[in-house]
Amino acid sequence: MKLYDTPLAPNPRRVRWFMAEKGITDIEIVQLNLIQGDHKTDDYLGRAGLPNVPALEMDDGTTITESVAICRYLESLYPEPNLFGRDPKETAIIEMWTRRGEMLVATPMMLGVRHTHPAMAVLETQNPTIAEYNKAAAIRAMKVLDRQLADNEWLAAGRLTIADIVAFIGIDFGRLIKLRPPEELTHVGRWHAAMSARPAAKAAM
Amino acid sequence: MKLYDTPLAPNPRRVRWFMAEKGITDIEIVQLNLIQGDHKTDDYLGRAGLPNVPALEMDDGTTITESVAICRYLESLYPEPNLFGRDPKETAIIEMWTRRGEMLVATPMMLGVRHTHPAMAVLETQNPTIAEYNKAAAIRAMKVLDRQLADNEWLAAGRLTIADIVAFIGIDFGRLIKLRPPEELTHVGRWHAAMSARPAAKAAM
Repeated sequence: MKLYDTPLAPNPRRVRWFMAEKGITDIEIVQLNLIQGDHKTDDYLGRAGLPNVPALEMDDGTTITESVAICRYLESLYPEPNLFGRDPKETAIIEMWTRRGEMLVATPMMLGVRHTHPAMAVLETQNPTIAEYNKAAAIRAMKVLDRQLADNEWLAAGRLTIADIVAFIGIDFGRLIKLRPPEELTHVGRWHAAMSARPAAKAAM
Repeated sequence: MKLYDTPLAPNPRRVRWFMAEKGITDIEIVQLNLIQGDHKTDDYLGRAGLPNVPALEMDDGTTITESVAICRYLESLYPEPNLFGRDPKETAIIEMWTRRGEMLVATPMMLGVRHTHPAMAVLETQNPTIAEYNKAAAIRAMKVLDRQLADNEWLAAGRLTIADIVAFIGIDFGRLIKLRPPEELTHVGRWHAAMSARPAAKAAM
Protein backbone atom coordinates (compact mmCIF):
# COMPACT_ATOMS: atom_id res chain seq x y z
CA MET A 1 0.00 0.00 0.00
CA LYS A 2 0.95 3.62 -0.50
CA LEU A 3 -0.31 6.67 1.33
CA TYR A 4 -0.28 9.93 -0.63
CA ASP A 5 0.33 12.55 2.03
CA THR A 6 1.15 16.23 2.38
CA PRO A 7 2.26 18.28 5.39
CA LEU A 8 0.27 21.15 6.99
CA ALA A 9 -3.18 20.23 5.68
CA PRO A 10 -5.52 18.86 8.38
CA ASN A 11 -7.08 15.89 6.58
CA PRO A 12 -3.82 14.05 5.81
CA ARG A 13 -2.82 14.68 9.42
CA ARG A 14 -5.80 12.57 10.57
CA VAL A 15 -4.42 9.54 8.75
CA ARG A 16 -0.85 10.10 10.01
CA TRP A 17 -2.17 10.43 13.58
CA PHE A 18 -4.33 7.31 13.19
CA MET A 19 -1.35 5.33 11.89
CA ALA A 20 0.81 6.56 14.77
CA GLU A 21 -1.79 5.43 17.34
CA LYS A 22 -1.82 2.00 15.70
CA GLY A 23 1.94 1.85 15.30
CA ILE A 24 1.61 1.31 11.54
CA THR A 25 5.02 1.76 9.93
CA ASP A 26 4.90 -0.58 6.93
CA ILE A 27 2.96 1.65 4.50
CA GLU A 28 4.99 3.58 1.95
CA ILE A 29 4.43 7.34 2.26
CA VAL A 30 4.52 9.45 -0.89
CA GLN A 31 4.81 13.17 -0.14
CA LEU A 32 2.98 15.53 -2.48
CA ASN A 33 3.82 19.20 -2.86
CA LEU A 34 0.50 20.99 -3.30
CA ILE A 35 2.07 24.36 -4.12
CA GLN A 36 3.84 22.63 -6.98
CA GLY A 37 0.53 21.00 -8.04
CA ASP A 38 1.53 17.35 -7.46
CA HIS A 39 -2.16 16.59 -6.70
CA LYS A 40 -3.31 17.94 -10.06
CA THR A 41 -1.17 15.84 -12.38
CA ASP A 42 -2.94 13.48 -14.78
CA ASP A 43 -1.33 10.56 -13.01
CA TYR A 44 -2.63 11.54 -9.56
CA LEU A 45 -6.10 12.51 -10.83
CA GLY A 46 -6.27 9.22 -12.71
CA ARG A 47 -5.72 7.36 -9.45
CA ALA A 48 -7.56 9.50 -6.91
CA GLY A 49 -10.39 10.86 -9.07
CA LEU A 50 -10.18 14.27 -7.39
CA PRO A 51 -7.26 16.56 -6.50
CA ASN A 52 -7.66 15.56 -2.86
CA VAL A 53 -5.02 14.43 -0.38
CA PRO A 54 -4.72 12.06 1.44
CA ALA A 55 -5.25 9.05 -0.81
CA LEU A 56 -4.53 5.40 -0.10
CA GLU A 57 -3.47 3.03 -2.85
CA MET A 58 -4.48 -0.48 -1.83
CA ASP A 59 -2.42 -3.54 -2.69
CA ASP A 60 -4.70 -4.31 -5.65
CA GLY A 61 -4.11 -0.81 -7.08
CA THR A 62 -7.49 0.66 -6.08
CA THR A 63 -7.03 4.17 -4.74
CA ILE A 64 -9.41 5.84 -2.30
CA THR A 65 -9.52 9.36 -0.93
CA GLU A 66 -11.36 10.67 2.16
CA SER A 67 -9.46 10.51 5.41
CA VAL A 68 -12.12 8.77 7.50
CA ALA A 69 -12.77 6.12 4.81
CA ILE A 70 -9.01 5.50 4.65
CA CYS A 71 -8.76 5.16 8.44
CA ARG A 72 -11.72 2.76 8.63
CA TYR A 73 -10.11 0.63 5.92
CA LEU A 74 -6.81 0.61 7.82
CA GLU A 75 -8.71 -0.43 10.96
CA SER A 76 -9.81 -3.59 9.13
CA LEU A 77 -6.14 -4.48 8.47
CA TYR A 78 -4.67 -3.23 11.78
CA PRO A 79 -7.48 -3.81 14.28
CA GLU A 80 -5.68 -2.82 17.51
CA PRO A 81 -6.00 -0.53 19.33
CA ASN A 82 -9.62 -0.26 18.28
CA LEU A 83 -10.48 3.29 17.20
CA PHE A 84 -13.83 2.83 15.36
CA GLY A 85 -15.86 0.68 17.78
CA ARG A 86 -15.99 -2.96 18.90
CA ASP A 87 -19.71 -3.50 18.28
CA PRO A 88 -22.52 -1.75 16.40
CA LYS A 89 -23.54 0.42 19.35
CA GLU A 90 -20.00 1.67 20.03
CA THR A 91 -19.46 2.14 16.31
CA ALA A 92 -22.61 4.28 16.12
CA ILE A 93 -21.65 6.49 19.06
CA ILE A 94 -18.10 6.94 17.77
CA GLU A 95 -19.40 7.77 14.29
CA MET A 96 -21.85 10.28 15.78
CA TRP A 97 -19.01 12.10 17.58
CA THR A 98 -16.70 11.83 14.58
CA ARG A 99 -19.36 13.48 12.42
CA ARG A 100 -20.02 16.16 15.03
CA GLY A 101 -16.29 16.82 15.30
CA GLU A 102 -15.99 17.01 11.55
CA MET A 103 -19.09 18.89 10.51
CA LEU A 104 -19.53 21.17 13.50
CA VAL A 105 -15.85 21.92 14.19
CA ALA A 106 -13.36 20.79 11.53
CA THR A 107 -15.18 21.93 8.39
CA PRO A 108 -16.02 25.44 9.66
CA MET A 109 -12.48 25.81 11.04
CA MET A 110 -10.99 24.78 7.71
CA LEU A 111 -13.15 27.35 5.91
CA GLY A 112 -12.37 29.98 8.55
CA VAL A 113 -8.64 29.43 8.01
CA ARG A 114 -8.87 29.29 4.21
CA HIS A 115 -10.75 32.58 4.10
CA THR A 116 -8.46 34.31 6.61
CA HIS A 117 -4.83 33.18 6.35
CA PRO A 118 -2.85 35.24 3.80
CA ALA A 119 -1.02 32.17 2.49
CA MET A 120 -4.34 30.49 1.60
CA ALA A 121 -5.28 33.23 -0.86
CA VAL A 122 -3.71 31.09 -3.58
CA LEU A 123 -6.32 28.36 -2.91
CA GLU A 124 -9.46 30.42 -2.55
CA THR A 125 -10.97 33.85 -3.27
CA GLN A 126 -11.05 34.95 0.34
CA ASN A 127 -14.22 36.46 1.68
CA PRO A 128 -14.38 38.02 5.17
CA THR A 129 -18.09 37.25 5.58
CA ILE A 130 -17.45 33.55 5.02
CA ALA A 131 -14.41 33.71 7.31
CA GLU A 132 -16.36 35.22 10.22
CA TYR A 133 -19.41 33.00 9.77
CA ASN A 134 -17.27 29.88 9.95
CA LYS A 135 -15.04 31.00 12.81
CA ALA A 136 -18.14 31.77 14.87
CA ALA A 137 -19.56 28.32 14.02
CA ALA A 138 -16.34 26.60 15.09
CA ILE A 139 -16.35 28.39 18.44
CA ARG A 140 -20.02 27.51 19.06
CA ALA A 141 -19.19 23.89 18.31
CA MET A 142 -16.34 23.84 20.81
CA LYS A 143 -18.95 24.55 23.47
CA VAL A 144 -20.76 21.37 22.43
CA LEU A 145 -17.53 19.40 22.85
CA ASP A 146 -16.94 21.07 26.22
CA ARG A 147 -20.31 19.84 27.52
CA GLN A 148 -19.49 16.29 26.42
CA LEU A 149 -15.98 16.43 27.88
CA ALA A 150 -17.29 17.71 31.23
CA ASP A 151 -18.45 14.18 32.04
CA ASN A 152 -16.19 12.15 29.77
CA GLU A 153 -12.43 11.86 29.45
CA TRP A 154 -12.78 11.29 25.69
CA LEU A 155 -15.53 12.15 23.21
CA ALA A 156 -16.89 8.62 22.78
CA ALA A 157 -16.67 5.06 24.11
CA GLY A 158 -14.53 5.94 27.15
CA ARG A 159 -11.26 5.86 25.24
CA LEU A 160 -9.41 7.73 22.52
CA THR A 161 -11.08 7.09 19.16
CA ILE A 162 -11.17 8.48 15.64
CA ALA A 163 -13.68 11.05 16.98
CA ASP A 164 -11.01 12.67 19.18
CA ILE A 165 -8.49 12.67 16.34
CA VAL A 166 -10.87 14.39 13.93
CA ALA A 167 -12.13 16.96 16.45
CA PHE A 168 -8.67 17.78 17.82
CA ILE A 169 -7.08 18.26 14.42
CA GLY A 170 -10.02 20.46 13.41
CA ILE A 171 -9.54 22.70 16.45
CA ASP A 172 -5.77 22.67 16.21
CA PHE A 173 -5.87 23.92 12.60
CA GLY A 174 -7.14 27.21 14.04
CA ARG A 175 -3.60 27.85 15.34
CA LEU A 176 -2.74 29.13 11.86
CA ILE A 177 -5.02 32.11 12.45
CA LYS A 178 -4.45 32.24 16.24
CA LEU A 179 -7.97 30.95 16.86
CA ARG A 180 -7.65 28.84 20.01
CA PRO A 181 -10.31 27.29 22.25
CA PRO A 182 -11.75 29.97 24.56
CA GLU A 183 -10.17 29.62 28.02
CA GLU A 184 -13.52 29.22 29.76
CA LEU A 185 -13.95 25.88 27.97
CA THR A 186 -11.91 24.14 30.65
CA HIS A 187 -12.90 20.60 29.65
CA VAL A 188 -11.85 21.20 26.06
CA GLY A 189 -8.65 22.69 27.51
CA ARG A 190 -7.91 19.56 29.58
CA TRP A 191 -8.64 17.25 26.63
CA HIS A 192 -6.67 19.46 24.22
CA ALA A 193 -3.63 19.22 26.53
CA ALA A 194 -4.00 15.42 26.76
CA MET A 195 -4.21 15.09 22.98
CA SER A 196 -1.24 17.42 22.45
CA ALA A 197 0.86 15.30 24.83
CA ARG A 198 0.32 12.03 22.97
CA PRO A 199 3.28 10.61 21.06
CA ALA A 200 1.03 10.58 17.97
CA ALA A 201 0.73 14.38 18.15
CA LYS A 202 4.48 14.67 17.53
CA ALA A 203 4.55 11.89 14.96
CA ALA A 204 1.72 13.58 13.05
CA MET A 205 2.52 17.27 13.15
CA MET B 1 -36.46 1.36 19.02
CA LYS B 2 -37.86 4.78 18.19
CA LEU B 3 -36.91 7.09 15.36
CA TYR B 4 -37.37 10.80 16.00
CA ASP B 5 -38.23 12.20 12.60
CA THR B 6 -39.46 15.37 10.96
CA PRO B 7 -40.75 16.06 7.44
CA LEU B 8 -39.09 18.36 4.86
CA ALA B 9 -35.55 18.39 6.34
CA PRO B 10 -33.02 16.43 4.26
CA ASN B 11 -31.17 14.51 6.98
CA PRO B 12 -34.19 12.70 8.43
CA ARG B 13 -35.18 11.87 4.86
CA ARG B 14 -31.96 9.85 4.48
CA VAL B 15 -33.01 7.54 7.31
CA ARG B 16 -36.58 7.18 6.01
CA TRP B 17 -35.25 6.36 2.54
CA PHE B 18 -32.74 3.87 3.98
CA MET B 19 -35.49 2.16 5.97
CA ALA B 20 -37.72 2.02 2.89
CA GLU B 21 -34.94 0.34 0.84
CA LYS B 22 -34.56 -2.24 3.63
CA GLY B 23 -38.30 -2.68 4.12
CA ILE B 24 -37.97 -1.78 7.82
CA THR B 25 -41.44 -1.18 9.23
CA ASP B 26 -41.13 -2.24 12.88
CA ILE B 27 -39.51 0.91 14.29
CA GLU B 28 -41.80 3.39 16.02
CA ILE B 29 -41.66 6.81 14.36
CA VAL B 30 -42.10 9.89 16.53
CA GLN B 31 -42.80 13.03 14.50
CA LEU B 32 -41.32 16.27 15.79
CA ASN B 33 -42.58 19.70 14.83
CA LEU B 34 -39.51 21.90 14.52
CA ILE B 35 -41.49 25.13 14.10
CA GLN B 36 -43.08 24.37 17.43
CA GLY B 37 -39.63 23.63 18.92
CA ASP B 38 -40.18 19.94 19.74
CA HIS B 39 -36.42 19.39 19.22
CA LYS B 40 -35.49 21.98 21.83
CA THR B 41 -37.43 20.63 24.80
CA ASP B 42 -35.45 19.52 27.86
CA ASP B 43 -36.68 15.99 27.29
CA TYR B 44 -35.43 15.81 23.71
CA LEU B 45 -32.12 17.55 24.45
CA GLY B 46 -31.60 15.21 27.40
CA ARG B 47 -31.86 12.25 25.04
CA ALA B 48 -30.24 13.52 21.85
CA GLY B 49 -27.64 15.90 23.31
CA LEU B 50 -28.20 18.41 20.52
CA PRO B 51 -31.34 19.88 18.93
CA ASN B 52 -30.77 17.68 15.89
CA VAL B 53 -33.19 15.43 14.05
CA PRO B 54 -33.17 12.54 13.21
CA ALA B 55 -32.34 10.65 16.38
CA LEU B 56 -32.61 6.92 17.06
CA GLU B 57 -33.45 5.60 20.50
CA MET B 58 -32.01 2.10 20.79
CA ASP B 59 -33.71 -0.66 22.74
CA ASP B 60 -31.42 -0.03 25.74
CA GLY B 61 -32.46 3.65 25.82
CA THR B 62 -29.23 5.03 24.29
CA THR B 63 -30.08 7.75 21.76
CA ILE B 64 -27.87 8.69 18.85
CA THR B 65 -28.13 11.45 16.30
CA GLU B 66 -26.40 11.77 12.90
CA SER B 67 -28.19 10.23 9.97
CA VAL B 68 -25.30 8.17 8.60
CA ALA B 69 -24.40 6.78 12.04
CA ILE B 70 -28.07 5.83 12.49
CA CYS B 71 -28.19 4.11 9.09
CA ARG B 72 -24.97 2.17 9.72
CA TYR B 73 -26.38 0.99 13.05
CA LEU B 74 -29.62 -0.10 11.35
CA GLU B 75 -27.54 -1.97 8.75
CA SER B 76 -26.12 -4.11 11.59
CA LEU B 77 -29.66 -5.13 12.59
CA TYR B 78 -31.20 -5.33 9.11
CA PRO B 79 -28.29 -6.44 6.91
CA GLU B 80 -30.14 -6.90 3.60
CA PRO B 81 -30.03 -5.40 1.05
CA ASN B 82 -26.48 -4.35 1.86
CA LEU B 83 -26.08 -0.58 1.57
CA PHE B 84 -22.74 0.04 3.37
CA GLY B 85 -20.42 -2.58 1.85
CA ARG B 86 -19.84 -6.31 2.11
CA ASP B 87 -16.10 -6.18 2.82
CA PRO B 88 -13.54 -3.56 3.87
CA LYS B 89 -12.73 -2.49 0.31
CA GLU B 90 -16.37 -2.00 -0.70
CA THR B 91 -17.04 -0.27 2.61
CA ALA B 92 -14.17 2.14 1.94
CA ILE B 93 -15.31 3.01 -1.57
CA ILE B 94 -18.92 3.47 -0.45
CA GLU B 95 -17.81 5.66 2.47
CA MET B 96 -15.64 7.73 0.12
CA TRP B 97 -18.63 8.43 -2.14
CA THR B 98 -20.96 8.99 0.78
CA ARG B 99 -18.56 11.60 2.13
CA ARG B 100 -18.15 13.22 -1.28
CA GLY B 101 -21.93 13.31 -1.68
CA GLU B 102 -22.34 14.79 1.75
CA MET B 103 -19.50 17.27 1.97
CA LEU B 104 -19.27 18.33 -1.64
CA VAL B 105 -23.00 18.35 -2.47
CA ALA B 106 -25.39 18.00 0.47
CA THR B 107 -23.79 20.39 2.95
CA PRO B 108 -23.33 23.28 0.48
CA MET B 109 -26.86 22.71 -0.86
CA MET B 110 -28.30 22.77 2.63
CA LEU B 111 -26.49 26.06 3.34
CA GLY B 112 -27.52 27.44 -0.04
CA VAL B 113 -31.18 26.70 0.74
CA ARG B 114 -31.01 27.98 4.32
CA HIS B 115 -29.52 31.27 3.20
CA THR B 116 -31.95 31.71 0.28
CA HIS B 117 -35.42 30.34 1.01
CA PRO B 118 -37.69 32.92 2.69
CA ALA B 119 -39.18 30.35 5.07
CA MET B 120 -35.70 29.50 6.42
CA ALA B 121 -35.14 33.03 7.69
CA VAL B 122 -36.51 31.87 11.04
CA LEU B 123 -33.60 29.41 11.36
CA GLU B 124 -30.70 31.54 10.22
CA THR B 125 -29.62 35.15 9.61
CA GLN B 126 -29.59 34.88 5.84
CA ASN B 127 -26.58 36.14 3.98
CA PRO B 128 -26.54 36.35 0.16
CA THR B 129 -22.74 35.91 -0.02
CA ILE B 130 -22.96 32.61 1.85
CA ALA B 131 -25.94 31.57 -0.27
CA GLU B 132 -24.13 32.17 -3.58
CA TYR B 133 -20.84 30.62 -2.42
CA ASN B 134 -22.60 27.42 -1.42
CA LYS B 135 -24.89 27.18 -4.45
CA ALA B 136 -21.85 27.49 -6.71
CA ALA B 137 -20.06 24.79 -4.71
CA ALA B 138 -23.04 22.43 -5.01
CA ILE B 139 -23.15 22.87 -8.79
CA ARG B 140 -19.40 22.27 -9.13
CA ALA B 141 -19.80 19.09 -7.10
CA MET B 142 -22.59 17.81 -9.36
CA LYS B 143 -20.01 17.81 -12.15
CA VAL B 144 -17.86 15.45 -10.07
CA LEU B 145 -20.83 13.10 -9.68
CA ASP B 146 -21.54 13.36 -13.41
CA ARG B 147 -18.02 12.14 -14.25
CA GLN B 148 -18.44 9.16 -11.93
CA LEU B 149 -21.92 8.36 -13.27
CA ALA B 150 -20.69 8.50 -16.88
CA ASP B 151 -19.10 5.05 -16.39
CA ASN B 152 -21.15 3.74 -13.48
CA GLU B 153 -24.86 3.14 -13.00
CA TRP B 154 -24.53 4.03 -9.29
CA LEU B 155 -21.96 6.04 -7.35
CA ALA B 156 -20.22 3.08 -5.71
CA ALA B 157 -19.97 -0.72 -5.66
CA GLY B 158 -22.13 -1.25 -8.75
CA ARG B 159 -25.42 -1.01 -6.87
CA LEU B 160 -27.54 1.48 -4.98
CA THR B 161 -25.88 2.30 -1.65
CA ILE B 162 -26.03 4.87 1.12
CA ALA B 163 -23.81 7.05 -1.11
CA ASP B 164 -26.60 7.45 -3.69
CA ILE B 165 -29.17 8.17 -0.99
CA VAL B 166 -27.07 10.92 0.59
CA ALA B 167 -26.06 12.53 -2.71
CA PHE B 168 -29.56 12.39 -4.21
CA ILE B 169 -31.28 13.88 -1.18
CA GLY B 170 -28.64 16.61 -1.11
CA ILE B 171 -29.30 17.53 -4.72
CA ASP B 172 -33.05 17.16 -4.41
CA PHE B 173 -33.18 19.62 -1.51
CA GLY B 174 -32.26 22.31 -4.06
CA ARG B 175 -35.83 22.01 -5.42
CA LEU B 176 -36.91 24.35 -2.61
CA ILE B 177 -34.98 27.16 -4.29
CA LYS B 178 -35.48 25.85 -7.85
CA LEU B 179 -31.81 24.84 -8.06
CA ARG B 180 -31.83 21.71 -10.23
CA PRO B 181 -28.95 19.78 -11.81
CA PRO B 182 -27.77 21.58 -14.97
CA GLU B 183 -29.22 19.83 -18.05
CA GLU B 184 -25.81 19.22 -19.60
CA LEU B 185 -25.03 16.82 -16.72
CA THR B 186 -26.79 14.02 -18.54
CA HIS B 187 -25.41 11.22 -16.36
CA VAL B 188 -26.61 12.94 -13.20
CA GLY B 189 -29.92 13.43 -15.02
CA ARG B 190 -30.25 9.70 -15.80
CA TRP B 191 -29.33 8.71 -12.22
CA HIS B 192 -31.60 11.39 -10.75
CA ALA B 193 -34.53 9.99 -12.74
CA ALA B 194 -33.70 6.44 -11.59
CA MET B 195 -33.55 7.51 -7.95
CA SER B 196 -36.78 9.51 -8.25
CA ALA B 197 -38.56 6.45 -9.65
CA ARG B 198 -37.70 4.15 -6.73
CA PRO B 199 -40.52 3.20 -4.39
CA ALA B 200 -38.35 4.54 -1.55
CA ALA B 201 -38.49 8.03 -3.09
CA LYS B 202 -42.25 8.07 -2.53
CA ALA B 203 -42.07 6.42 0.86
CA ALA B 204 -39.49 9.01 1.97
CA MET B 205 -40.73 12.29 0.55
